[in-house]
Amino acid sequence: MAVGSPPPIDIPPVPGFRLAATACGLKATGRPDLLLVHMHPGTAVAGVFTRNQVVAAPVQICRQRLVGGRADALIVNAGNANAGTGPQGVQNALEVSRSVARELSVPEACIFISSTGVIGQPLPVEKIRAAIPSLAANLRDDAWSDAAVAITTTDTFPKARHRRCTLDGRPVLLAGIAKGAGMIHPDMATLLAYVFTDAAITPMAWQRLLERAVSASFNSITVDGDTSTNDTLLGFASGLAGNDLLTDPDSPRAAPLVTALNDLCQELAHLIVRDGEGATKFITITVAGAKSEADARQIGKVVAHSQLVKTAFFGQDPNWGRILAAVGRAGIPINVDAVDIHLGDVQIVQKGGLDPTYTEARGAQVMSAPEIAVHIHLHAGSAAATTWTCDLSHDYVTINADYRT
Amino acid sequence: MAVGSPPPIDIPPVPGFRLAATACGLKATGRPDLLLVHMHPGTAVAGVFTRNQVVAAPVQICRQRLVGGRADALIVNAGNANAGTGPQGVQNALEVSRSVARELSVPEACIFISSTGVIGQPLPVEKIRAAIPSLAANLRDDAWSDAAVAITTTDTFPKARHRRCTLDGRPVLLAGIAKGAGMIHPDMATLLAYVFTDAAITPMAWQRLLERAVSASFNSITVDGDTSTNDTLLGFASGLAGNDLLTDPDSPRAAPLVTALNDLCQELAHLIVRDGEGATKFITITVAGAKSEADARQIGKVVAHSQLVKTAFFGQDPNWGRILAAVGRAGIPINVDAVDIHLGDVQIVQKGGLDPTYTEARGAQVMSAPEIAVHIHLHAGSAAATTWTCDLSHDYVTINADYRT
Repeated sequence: MAVGSPPPIDIPPVPGFRLAATACGLKATGRPDLLLVHMHPGTAVAGVFTRNQVVAAPVQICRQRLVGGRADALIVNAGNANAGTGPQGVQNALEVSRSVARELSVPEACIFISSTGVIGQPLPVEKIRAAIPSLAANLRDDAWSDAAVAITTTDTFPKARHRRCTLDGRPVLLAGIAKGAGMIHPDMATLLAYVFTDAAITPMAWQRLLERAVSASFNSITVDGDTSTNDTLLGFASGLAGNDLLTDPDSPRAAPLVTALNDLCQELAHLIVRDGEGATKFITITVAGAKSEADARQIGKVVAHSQLVKTAFFGQDPNWGRILAAVGRAGIPINVDAVDIHLGDVQIVQKGGLDPTYTEARGAQVMSAPEIAVHIHLHAGSAAATTWTCDLSHDYVTINADYRT
Repeated sequence: MAVGSPPPIDIPPVPGFRLAATACGLKATGRPDLLLVHMHPGTAVAGVFTRNQVVAAPVQICRQRLVGGRADALIVNAGNANAGTGPQGVQNALEVSRSVARELSVPEACIFISSTGVIGQPLPVEKIRAAIPSLAANLRDDAWSDAAVAITTTDTFPKARHRRCTLDGRPVLLAGIAKGAGMIHPDMATLLAYVFTDAAITPMAWQRLLERAVSASFNSITVDGDTSTNDTLLGFASGLAGNDLLTDPDSPRAAPLVTALNDLCQELAHLIVRDGEGATKFITITVAGAKSEADARQIGKVVAHSQLVKTAFFGQDPNWGRILAAVGRAGIPINVDAVDIHLGDVQIVQKGGLDPTYTEARGAQVMSAPEIAVHIHLHAGSAAATTWTCDLSHDYVTINADYRT
């Protein structure tokens, strides 16, 4: 189940990147579960990872290797998260990356690695190693669809989008693939996303752009509020577009890349929410009139996380009391008697109480749509932030409760 | 649906308190919905209220009147929360309290008032006022069961318990009634609890004891993490037990009252969790080996709030990865490689990984019981805290989503 129709995958080749995917036997279903990406030498890498203190082995390795700023290859497996696996988990991840380095004749320190799936189970290293030679032999520049499929777990559709921009008169391409739909069967929510571009940019500037893009995209969505041990966003920039090397992330020259990157990350993040476990509604929560963007973001997150708000949306119930109560408990000082709330175009709360022009019929009409916008105005300042979420349905409970029983 | 059998209500008269309940027509079902308690002159009052900034009219009034420290009567209605009702809501609540004051010939400033039920609807003041004379005429000292029923909304059973203790050789009685089972149909979660004792204690000392009792009882339970606009705990002490007036909450003389009060509040809080909307499991989460009690409490709350942990319990899935991930994202620095987790008597996590002696069969046996203890040991210090919660079931979604559709 997903909100809306998944968009088709039509990503053109991105200079500097070749990909291959296969089924190496990690998924019980026999579906593709292993992705290898080989990159142009000297590709700049940047990354953002889970804030959870419980961190999977591959994330530990990526964090260390990010310091070098250069990547030669990425290997991602689905079906086993290699998390909760202790020192042996790290050894297993290192062994996989060593095999990739040897096969591609590149330094091991430039191999990036991700895992997603069951936690607490040893990574089947031999299955992965056995598949690497054929992956390396079958690298292609047009395998984006295969790549997007290979990294999925409980996702109901693969997620891949692209954007174009121009830097110094040169056409630049950005491609992104992502996965994540709440918890990963049977154990963890994991959000994985990878962005590939041919722009020429230094690793430090690229890192800054990626961090900023995350704030209004992957860090502004929530399916169930649980943070995975494996969450990873990696960005790779091959430099083959021929633009002058970007060194300053704040330079006006970088603006077209910033816009394209933010836009791409936001669309990938939205696809994850649309594919949220059990989701029947795509909900956009905008908090405006706040004293600061941080205030607006905090209030938006509390509303988006509220089980009561989420079940009300599932029930198509225009339950403004639950929304207002969530605003009130977000820990941000507000003047309740100034708060306005709109559902779509319909004002439901005026100055903290029911709007006199509101009717149940108008509210019900907004709530019956698959996409619903909630606009909360605090009238306390001029800052705003948007958060995206989905509803909490019976299917969410089924997906997350019934796996083993 | 509730976890376990509700205990019978067998509260003896508490000197200084007479009660009456009736159905005044606020509940669509026609069930009792109005409670009046008349108190001995000079009864000491203490209270703890919702931390939500969106505060219902009766809570605003109670907060102001608490300053006086004395109560003559309490009036509680169920079926209408008088929240989100603006200045008119305050006027309506004042009118109800004025009617009670006139009927009982007591000062209006000593009337306490609570409401629970639908929000955003005007309080039907006339229905309430019309019922007050007959309530006042029918006050009895043994109407505890009627009182407990009259304050319920979506509760599946009334909640009332009592405790005895001895102060200065005098027998002292404490009676408590409570309601709250997650959200109140159709709009708000509301927890209401009232404690009545004949102990002689000053309002300030009584306030301190009540605040402390809340921490390890009502503030340590969660059904869905949403805080109501109406949450109220009020304590009344008539002073008729004949003990020497307690003025110092830290005096060893107060110890028997402290123990009885804490114990009573904890049992009432547990009854609320057992009656949690859709609950099929009663879950006790103890976090031990923390550097501070605040750390232990914070981690316990994050685990108890996790939708993933709660659905796993509903599915009877011994999903240690979800528990460990919740511990890791609680914002408290921990050494993951030191964490042990037990489910009941069964160790499932040892030093941050799967315990080698653990078997699925042993875990499944613990999870199949209606009451489950989770013990998390951080090995970082000697502080501990316990949180109680219930699972997240299909019925929770049904109760909270399907009301209006």
